[in-house]
Amino acid sequence: MSNSVGVVATKRAVFEMPLRFRSGAVLPRYELVYETYGTLNADRSNAILICHALSGHHHVAGYYSDAPNNIGWWDNMVGPGKPINTDKFYVIGLNNLGGCHGSTGPSSINPETGLPYGSSFPVITVEDWVESQARLASELGIDCFAAVVGGSLGGMQALQWSLAYPERVRHVLAIASAPRLTAQNIAFNDVARNAILTDPDFHGGDFYLHGVVPTRGLRLARMLGHITYLSDDAMADKFGRELRTGQYNYGYEVEFQIESYLRYQGDKFAAYFDANTYLLMTKALDYFDPAQDYEGDLNKAFARARANFLVISFTTDWRFSPQRSREIVRPLLHNHRNVSYAEITSNHGHDSFLMDDSQYMDVVRAYLANIRCGVKV
Amino acid sequence: MSNSVGVVATKRAVFEMPLRFRSGAVLPRYELVYETYGTLNADRSNAILICHALSGHHHVAGYYSDAPNNIGWWDNMVGPGKPINTDKFYVIGLNNLGGCHGSTGPSSINPETGLPYGSSFPVITVEDWVESQARLASELGIDCFAAVVGGSLGGMQALQWSLAYPERVRHVLAIASAPRLTAQNIAFNDVARNAILTDPDFHGGDFYLHGVVPTRGLRLARMLGHITYLSDDAMADKFGRELRTGQYNYGYEVEFQIESYLRYQGDKFAAYFDANTYLLMTKALDYFDPAQDYEGDLNKAFARARANFLVISFTTDWRFSPQRSREIVRPLLHNHRNVSYAEITSNHGHDSFLMDDSQYMDVVRAYLANIRCGVKV
Repeated sequence: MSNSVGVVATKRAVFEMPLRFRSGAVLPRYELVYETYGTLNADRSNAILICHALSGHHHVAGYYSDAPNNIGWWDNMVGPGKPINTDKFYVIGLNNLGGCHGSTGPSSINPETGLPYGSSFPVITVEDWVESQARLASELGIDCFAAVVGGSLGGMQALQWSLAYPERVRHVLAIASAPRLTAQNIAFNDVARNAILTDPDFHGGDFYLHGVVPTRGLRLARMLGHITYLSDDAMADKFGRELRTGQYNYGYEVEFQIESYLRYQGDKFAAYFDANTYLLMTKALDYFDPAQDYEGDLNKAFARARANFLVISFTTDWRFSPQRSREIVRPLLHNHRNVSYAEITSNHGHDSFLMDDSQYMDVVRAYLANIRCGVKV
Repeated sequence: MSNSVGVVATKRAVFEMPLRFRSGAVLPRYELVYETYGTLNADRSNAILICHALSGHHHVAGYYSDAPNNIGWWDNMVGPGKPINTDKFYVIGLNNLGGCHGSTGPSSINPETGLPYGSSFPVITVEDWVESQARLASELGIDCFAAVVGGSLGGMQALQWSLAYPERVRHVLAIASAPRLTAQNIAFNDVARNAILTDPDFHGGDFYLHGVVPTRGLRLARMLGHITYLSDDAMADKFGRELRTGQYNYGYEVEFQIESYLRYQGDKFAAYFDANTYLLMTKALDYFDPAQDYEGDLNKAFARARANFLVISFTTDWRFSPQRSREIVRPLLHNHRNVSYAEITSNHGHDSFLMDDSQYMDVVRAYLANIRCGVKV
């Protein structure tokens, strides 16, 4: 595969030091799985951290020797000569704490009990993730990231890096993100959560012990999610009112192709994703609000930031609309930060941040090409 | 109560003639409950039919002698001196066939079996409703309506009247409606339906026999619906990120006021609405497409229409956006129909059609004031 980072291997870091969550809960130990692409330079100044969104993970680029078709979720963005250029940068992808792809999460075995954490896994926040990521950075010998990059929920983590560790990140790329969710966005998350929480197979989060999975709830949550990740226009273009059998059958089986697509996506997701992780991810989205401790004033909240920023939004993204990105840009300008803002014309809604849009790719490529490595802040 | 039609009583019409549905299914007999306001004039030319949307019913205006607080759902629109002026017009509201407010529906007892229809109640379409409404009109001695009026799904019925019975309706008011759903809209309906269909208490539609109600599914369907009936801005204004207890509690109970609102609406709805009726209503929405028999060409589909039209949309309605209303206007203009189109600036999203917006009220008032009664088409 041209321009691929090629065969990659998943690594594992174990942290035996307790992590105190924002909620007050304490996790005595945890593990994070991660991958790295490219080479860390001599003064360790070329590292880029990729923060993932709701259903993402550590496998950002490349493929596995024993699974050549399992290609990283941002392989179009990360690789030699790609916008996040691994010839220049040392790129790190991780699975967030609470995840279900190898890092310690609700489906992991709690060594204290020998049983899955389940409902006992603490509610985690974006702040907690950044804390756990900072420990991973230290473990890897990285004092300061050249950049922290993320889309959607990942963008929130990138923003939080600039607030929690202003001296440890030179550039923040927040893509299709928001400084905090709106009521509508929280509402969508709440419906998705309620689908899972009220599934009789959820068992209060301890379904592992019952040998079942709250498939119905997860499936509904994912179906709903998918609608909000796509634009109305993109759905109309792709599916319109196309019928599966070419005629109306007047029943509750699939009639329209859009239904077939959604149910397929829901089934696929419910077969592998952990319901508790889904809940945790949506809660982290809801809770993130840098202005929470500043009487709601984002200008004050972002006063601590020292990084340079690239903020990107997409015209048809209605789940994290351009308006939300401008709410990131405004307080940064107020605080005289260097901010570049690009509003990309795209038809693909929120999913645009994962797509191969040339204008988008060029903006990221140009921005990162201008970063000088080997120069400390 | 000033300007109220006052005390009203529900009436019942029984149709012993079989109704053949578009699906081919036949209902041997059925009943419709309805209410009337105002007085039918001598030449029976001043009747207006109000068609309801997903969760509406026959109780459009006024109140009951034994329930003075049970006020009709469109009481702000219908009454003496109101936009739909009962001093001038004879107004009819009905509960659609398949409903759960008194007309024959899935929760009614099938006289052939002595059990609720449940899953045996046929899937019904907008065309079938208009057929059943036309029979009610004949029963009431109304050859031609001065107007048929409806919002949302009700607007589709009003449009269908102009196509099925071009000589029986002089004016059509289609408010916050669409000529046919987009993929996104079908997708939202499909998620809502799946919430109900996969609820273990649904029992394939025959939950009545099990003494349970698919509350979880109905609740989710309604919560999701509510999000799409409100605008992002209206939700932000009304709820923002307001917390119920003033602080984060890091759990899955209600944190934000918007969650409290949605869950309350969901619980309230699930306590009285019939799950099978919900399914039927969303299916009727999905299936309606006047161009279905015209190779998708709305211009050809509307060639039959003879009525005059008032089409109204609301700027922040994203479930039935102004673009959808313009898709009604365009084929009518193509066919040289008289069409008035008003795009109302409103903050309330799809729910605007039920609100007391003065610009909106004035448009309806002015349009209907110009209708001359006593003059046949």
